[in-house]
Amino acid sequence: MRWIDSRTGIERLDRAECLRLLAGEEVGRVAFVRHGVPEIFPVNYALDGEAVVFRTDPGTKLDAERRGPAAFEIDEFDRAERSGWSVVALGRLEEVTSTDAAAFDRVRALGIQPWAEGDKAHWLRLVPTTLSGRRVTPAPDSES
Amino acid sequence: MRWIDSRTGIERLDRAECLRLLAGEEVGRVAFVRHGVPEIFPVNYALDGEAVVFRTDPGTKLDAERRGPAAFEIDEFDRAERSGWSVVALGRLEEVTSTDAAAFDRVRALGIQPWAEGDKAHWLRLVPTTLSGRRVTPAPDSES
Repeated sequence: MRWIDSRTGIERLDRAECLRLLAGEEVGRVAFVRHGVPEIFPVNYALDGEAVVFRTDPGTKLDAERRGPAAFEIDEFDRAERSGWSVVALGRLEEVTSTDAAAFDRVRALGIQPWAEGDKAHWLRLVPTTLSGRRVTPAPDSES
Repeated sequence: MRWIDSRTGIERLDRAECLRLLAGEEVGRVAFVRHGVPEIFPVNYALDGEAVVFRTDPGTKLDAERRGPAAFEIDEFDRAERSGWSVVALGRLEEVTSTDAAAFDRVRALGIQPWAEGDKAHWLRLVPTTLSGRRVTPAPDSES
């Protein structure tokens, strides 16, 4: 079944499709709030079940204050076709440490290799509380 | 002059390069904070000077409460090369209306055509207070 917004023509993607798309990418964007200001940065990631996992160094992205609500976004666009899709996962960032040995082994086995250098010996995960996705396809009437 | 982070190998892009990259794309991601939670969504945009301009419908993105600090991000990645860049503009969202006739004419002349349907008769702009950009190139040592 497809859900299309009659006003915008945007198709809403179901949870299974969102997870399928998340499984197929390896770079996404994490957004979180710091002192009331949104911060956003790209990360290399992989999925552990439904959790988005990425690696980081101690410092900016690992501060305790930043482990509040976070959003993770992936998308793909075709400028020529004027089409594309995006998926947003909302949840909280939490660090996976050796105190949860099973999870720690699992995320280390995901093979996430950040493109940037540095140890990045910390694993963060965002377990989605909500997953939403949209797909835009060329509009029959694209006049403004 | 190039600024390279010796720990991560990430190159910092200067303001001119950030603006050049912003001028060359047409889809980016807006992030803002709502009830303490980050929201992020892709938009079709254009530059008006240094301001990021996009169109929207009344409703979710136009609520007054959302006209606080916002971030706007663009990026481009090459998975095969394990390289890419990203630019983030931080500022506040404000609506451009006919009360500022010159700006209103200007943004309407930018030719922004959202891919999704709908009137999208409102123009929002984000005037960057800070602009930052990073470029990641393949690391000589990508072992973890």
